[in-house]
Amino acid sequence: MRPDAKRGPKIWTGPRRPPARTLAPPAPDHAILFGAHAVIEALRNPARIPRRLLATENGARRLAEEIGDLAIPPEVVRGDEIGRILGPEAVHQGFYLETDPLPGLALDDLGPESFVLALDQVTDPHNVGAIVRTAAAFGVDALLTTARHSPAATGVLAKAASGGLEHLPVVTVGNLGDALTTLGERGFERIGLDSEGETDFATLGPVRPAVLVLGAEGKGLRQRTRACCDRVARLEMPGAIKSLNVSNAAAIALYSLAGPRRG
Amino acid sequence: MRPDAKRGPKIWTGPRRPPARTLAPPAPDHAILFGAHAVIEALRNPARIPRRLLATENGARRLAEEIGDLAIPPEVVRGDEIGRILGPEAVHQGFYLETDPLPGLALDDLGPESFVLALDQVTDPHNVGAIVRTAAAFGVDALLTTARHSPAATGVLAKAASGGLEHLPVVTVGNLGDALTTLGERGFERIGLDSEGETDFATLGPVRPAVLVLGAEGKGLRQRTRACCDRVARLEMPGAIKSLNVSNAAAIALYSLAGPRRG
Repeated sequence: MRPDAKRGPKIWTGPRRPPARTLAPPAPDHAILFGAHAVIEALRNPARIPRRLLATENGARRLAEEIGDLAIPPEVVRGDEIGRILGPEAVHQGFYLETDPLPGLALDDLGPESFVLALDQVTDPHNVGAIVRTAAAFGVDALLTTARHSPAATGVLAKAASGGLEHLPVVTVGNLGDALTTLGERGFERIGLDSEGETDFATLGPVRPAVLVLGAEGKGLRQRTRACCDRVARLEMPGAIKSLNVSNAAAIALYSLAGPRRG
Repeated sequence: MRPDAKRGPKIWTGPRRPPARTLAPPAPDHAILFGAHAVIEALRNPARIPRRLLATENGARRLAEEIGDLAIPPEVVRGDEIGRILGPEAVHQGFYLETDPLPGLALDDLGPESFVLALDQVTDPHNVGAIVRTAAAFGVDALLTTARHSPAATGVLAKAASGGLEHLPVVTVGNLGDALTTLGERGFERIGLDSEGETDFATLGPVRPAVLVLGAEGKGLRQRTRACCDRVARLEMPGAIKSLNVSNAAAIALYSLAGPRRG
């Protein structure tokens, strides 16, 4: 019996249910992952050192089915207890994982046929997460990003990346212009994407090694970043609106440059 | 003097500042627009009947500069007063507009060379908004959507669309399968996008009239929707992640089918 069934799809919270416990907050130096895809992909990644795994009963069952033996057993908790750690906006789906941060790559680790995506102060974690997911789908070799003015690879970003963080090594640099200069000296074609670009993006073919550089929504590429690109290309927009969400622009550019070759 | 400047970038709320007034809530039958792009594009659209315009002092100045004569004068308010109407998550940038809902199109209004985007129960308003923006950028002629299981063209969706709603007529139907059948009888090529599609999307060329059909993230196209498509195409993903955010998938497909023709 659900005494409040008539009030709509509210979760039953009858009189016998104990209040949600307040679980320990995350350790400040841990990456936080939540959501089914983000947590399951992380647990499958041998480079991830898991430190704390929480799951609802259903979540724990799904982990056992999809992964089998786990490096750490899940602590079975209630969904609202995970919600109290993450806040009401987080769609955790009954999965919560803390891990050590993933080790990064160095610029020198990039191979001679690499395709790299660089982000110039793209700060919205939802957008960066969607970009990471799409980059991982199209086989991008690494993400190049700055230590400052970039969201951390955790939480909302990881959720939007939907597991993509496990497949996209990250190179973090202090200065993006310097990094692009170094890559240029190593033969990388440096392609900036900007609404004011002089080249029609559709005329570009796949080339390796290459780095695609995206700027922040609204602001675009910073002046020095732009100066460090071999070409700056624009997406032609025949319609009335002349700019795209940055993750949508990234998706088009990545599909064109890194996706399947057209016949 | 900012007595609390040391505490970080908090808005100054000194002792002489009166508390934010509680302004009237929006009328239930109005579309709500907030954010600079969404409001300014709406005020430029002669088909929009504005009913209530709120702006901060800076916002009102910008409206005067960018638009000049306004059909209704802005009521100058404080940013936190707009925030009290919209809630703390809304990035309103000092602009708030209520209007009559935009008139929709009928299926019969679509011309013989139309390119239409159909959404099959895509429910996340951020995603639908980004899709509307991108569709407007690539000159899509209309959005085909269902009366049920679709977010309303207001609020968060309108903000994410960044003005795109003013340039993308909407056809709302009761049954998407029936609408696709009707369009098929009128010669529309009906192209579904689905990760299980039998056709590589990259092999498709532009064709008119056409309708591109996108399904919900996770669920994809419903069975009847899929059966009503002439082809179901997939985006090839050579990387480890095998699905994209729905707005990213939409952007790639729209650029390929509706964007500039490749040489």
